[in-house]
Amino acid sequence: MVDILHRVGIRSSVAEVYEALTTTDGLAGWWTADTQGDGGDPGGVLRFRFGAGGFDMKVLELTPGQRVRWEVIEGPEEWIGTQVDWKLAQEGEHTIVLFHHRGWREPVEFLHHCSTKWAVFLMSLKSMVETGKGAPDPHDVKIDNWN
Amino acid sequence: MVDILHRVGIRSSVAEVYEALTTTDGLAGWWTADTQGDGGDPGGVLRFRFGAGGFDMKVLELTPGQRVRWEVIEGPEEWIGTQVDWKLAQEGEHTIVLFHHRGWREPVEFLHHCSTKWAVFLMSLKSMVETGKGAPDPHDVKIDNWN
Repeated sequence: MVDILHRVGIRSSVAEVYEALTTTDGLAGWWTADTQGDGGDPGGVLRFRFGAGGFDMKVLELTPGQRVRWEVIEGPEEWIGTQVDWKLAQEGEHTIVLFHHRGWREPVEFLHHCSTKWAVFLMSLKSMVETGKGAPDPHDVKIDNWN
Repeated sequence: MVDILHRVGIRSSVAEVYEALTTTDGLAGWWTADTQGDGGDPGGVLRFRFGAGGFDMKVLELTPGQRVRWEVIEGPEEWIGTQVDWKLAQEGEHTIVLFHHRGWREPVEFLHHCSTKWAVFLMSLKSMVETGKGAPDPHDVKIDNWN
């Protein structure tokens, strides 16, 4: 098993970051403009669509201001069954986001791409919460020949 | 053992990327302006200094246009003995960089920070090679309360 791990600090309250991870408007502002579904209830399903494909995530856990956890139920084969786990904590003026995308079966080249791309989207989340403007797909920062 | 993995694609020849990883001028253009030492010979030592500290890396392997590998011999305790491994390959108009920072003993919070920060510096490398302008320390993109 291989995990993608990241950490960003966002100058905001945890409530604002939690909202950006649990509402379709919030998610559409930093990850992909084409976000639908229900991110605010355990068992809800979020449908994220990108130019290159998409993911469906089932909400496994919601602890307001602290944690959000999803399971990938539809998408690229490498992603199916993996979990995306967000932990939030206030440290001074920052909300610290500890991000994990767990359960990759092999360290394939696509994982390397997704690791970098997650970092870019986390910086988009930070920007959206701090300034009101993120860079969601299709306006996302391109990192390589896979986008 | 835990690894940091990334992938970026740079619109350039592999020779240009290789130069950016093996010369002090190249490294100073995207990682830290305060880069000294010898990155062009196996056994050479590179000294990278940042506002918050620094790293010394011994060059373990140099295969022109294909691979660069360093071992951390001085720096934060978590980094000592880890290896930074760069693999390059041309794919169409891109040089694909497969990046590994291997050998972390534990998935500590500092690893999460370094994973995101490496992604940001890889985007700085991409920018420097493609446009002539990177964002090395002290002009680097800040990601959290650790910088």
